[in-house]
Amino acid sequence: MISVEEAKNIILNATQNFGVEEIPFIKSVGRILKEDIVADRDFPPFNRVSMDGIAVDFNVFQNGQRAFKIEAIQPAGSPQITLQNKENCLEVMTGAVLPNNTNVVIRYEDVVIKNGVASIQVNEVKELQNIHQKGKDRKSGDVLIDKNKVISAAEIGVLATVGKSNIKVAKLPKVIIISTGDELVKVTANPLPHQIRRSNVFTLVSLLERLNISSETDHITDDKPILKQKIVNYLKQFDVLLFSGAVSKGKFDFLPEIFTELGVEKLFHKVTQRPGKPFWFGQTENCKIFAFPGNPNSTFVNCLAYFYPWYYQSVGVEVQEETAILKEDVTFKPNLTYFLQVQLSDKFGHLLATPIQGNGSGDLASLVNADAFIQLPKTEKSLFKQGENFPIIRYR
Amino acid sequence: MISVEEAKNIILNATQNFGVEEIPFIKSVGRILKEDIVADRDFPPFNRVSMDGIAVDFNVFQNGQRAFKIEAIQPAGSPQITLQNKENCLEVMTGAVLPNNTNVVIRYEDVVIKNGVASIQVNEVKELQNIHQKGKDRKSGDVLIDKNKVISAAEIGVLATVGKSNIKVAKLPKVIIISTGDELVKVTANPLPHQIRRSNVFTLVSLLERLNISSETDHITDDKPILKQKIVNYLKQFDVLLFSGAVSKGKFDFLPEIFTELGVEKLFHKVTQRPGKPFWFGQTENCKIFAFPGNPNSTFVNCLAYFYPWYYQSVGVEVQEETAILKEDVTFKPNLTYFLQVQLSDKFGHLLATPIQGNGSGDLASLVNADAFIQLPKTEKSLFKQGENFPIIRYR
Repeated sequence: MISVEEAKNIILNATQNFGVEEIPFIKSVGRILKEDIVADRDFPPFNRVSMDGIAVDFNVFQNGQRAFKIEAIQPAGSPQITLQNKENCLEVMTGAVLPNNTNVVIRYEDVVIKNGVASIQVNEVKELQNIHQKGKDRKSGDVLIDKNKVISAAEIGVLATVGKSNIKVAKLPKVIIISTGDELVKVTANPLPHQIRRSNVFTLVSLLERLNISSETDHITDDKPILKQKIVNYLKQFDVLLFSGAVSKGKFDFLPEIFTELGVEKLFHKVTQRPGKPFWFGQTENCKIFAFPGNPNSTFVNCLAYFYPWYYQSVGVEVQEETAILKEDVTFKPNLTYFLQVQLSDKFGHLLATPIQGNGSGDLASLVNADAFIQLPKTEKSLFKQGENFPIIRYR
Repeated sequence: MISVEEAKNIILNATQNFGVEEIPFIKSVGRILKEDIVADRDFPPFNRVSMDGIAVDFNVFQNGQRAFKIEAIQPAGSPQITLQNKENCLEVMTGAVLPNNTNVVIRYEDVVIKNGVASIQVNEVKELQNIHQKGKDRKSGDVLIDKNKVISAAEIGVLATVGKSNIKVAKLPKVIIISTGDELVKVTANPLPHQIRRSNVFTLVSLLERLNISSETDHITDDKPILKQKIVNYLKQFDVLLFSGAVSKGKFDFLPEIFTELGVEKLFHKVTQRPGKPFWFGQTENCKIFAFPGNPNSTFVNCLAYFYPWYYQSVGVEVQEETAILKEDVTFKPNLTYFLQVQLSDKFGHLLATPIQGNGSGDLASLVNADAFIQLPKTEKSLFKQGENFPIIRYR
């Protein structure tokens, strides 16, 4: 039996490279960028008018002139025009190129226009005011988005701006999620008294969807030859096998012995944690096997605490640790790391974690009332006090 | 010109009902539940063995017997069997029904099995130990998930467990996102010096995808008759029109006058905020119109600050306000509400907001380095001090 920290270390050292693929930028939200995104020209690409109004020559204004005949209009999207006579002005629109021979934009709010003449109502202007200068934000060649960023709406805008209609992203792993347990029946079935419906595979599918990973699923009966035959094939076909169930001490918990018989390298079995102690982790040359215990909450928290960091590390994403402050005392006697369900709330910028008391690892419904797990360390002490802060793992 | 608070109030009072639809539960992550989900039977549905081991009769153990002949095995997924002779025991597996005539489970770790006899190695057991009692978590008829919940992986597990293969969720609004501005060219185009590529529509599409809303897009040239004709049709076809651009004072900012001509009710135009002051909001009987200013950051923050809360309110979701603590002093002189980009970090459960200084509302690339906007209130004072806390809007 190893500690949560040791287990995490082993997992983070067993990452996998799924390769890189090119996809349309508009399909890339949530994916991991695998190239630096560079400015293809200056931003803004020209001296850009940033207020609707008139453009004049600064020196003429400084010399006291306040009434300017309007020569023409410079709309956004039109080639740059030139102010022919510096004692005149041009009307200019937000987003337009600043016309030649002008270097001040005065907004309409400060101007009265009558009979083709703009009279300026203010006595002070600054050179280059209301002009977003060429290259002020970024220079051509600047890196705008670093490799390994998780793409969000903010990055989508930048990708569009620089014309990256296709981008390189990390390929997604091929994953299959397999449940075991003869007590499990289909969601659409009417279970007999000793049966329950399958739920863990669907929970895992949803947790992986949060990472943009779509997965296949299977349910295998607790029959060793059948299990073994199926696993032989899955080991060849997938990058990751996620199991739920059949890793504990039961007569029909065949997975650990099947893995041994198939030559899967065991990296660990059992972690000093609750829930999810009998977690089994191993690998072949091309496949990682996460075999989670079958209790719903064990499967749930193990996926978050181990598969998520493994995936992020594999694709090169750094994840900030988040912590929260216990809102109530918690007593927990076993000498295990405790992943406790909590409801998160914010008070003056402090993140508070209120424990949600469930009925143990089988009580799936209690997850509905929580937002995250708080990770209370394995320690001699059994009292974790209100006001102390600990790492959390959100799932909403 | 109205305040951010007034604008928000008007928007939250102009919600829309998109109706309800039934979808497969497995497709429902991120959707809004529109029915209470009720336990179809007790959970657990039977006295459930929660450790692999042996099941015995408590009284026999209490009377001092420690060696029990194994009668049979009760696997998970098999109908309940009966211990024939109370001085014997049954092997039981996690997830199995507790056999008749037994009321204690002793885990394998505390038992030695030899020649079909299990010798118990501990001298103390508790009645019902390692048994997850029928109905302990939830009773048949209990509400497990309340209506109006945003569905996550946790809810998916519960839906599967109670056999809700199809569920009622809020319908999604039909949205079209329309950009204007003749300076804008396609992402795949090579812009001329006075042109830039379209980006706002893609940013908005991505921001709506975060809400699971898929949207259509269009780009309309700055030509009033064309704009008007298209808008007439869109007002009939969609629940929501989102515009980017053409709402300010420019000569080609036709939208406000077109809306008036088409009989769209204006609810407000202009909000005392930066960025995004010229935001226009209105409605027809069946359509809401959010017309955002065209600067990238204006569009971005307005969608988060107004469209998001409007959508959540429309579908009945309560959203907790989140706040963060300024990590540095911020000086902002204009008498406007300031949506400032910040990078979030966690320290001992405190959420810290570090301002990311961009170059104004056109500097889209600066959003890449931030995670959220902090909302600094419109006030006489211009200094917001390190350590003060204010509401934030996350976008990652």
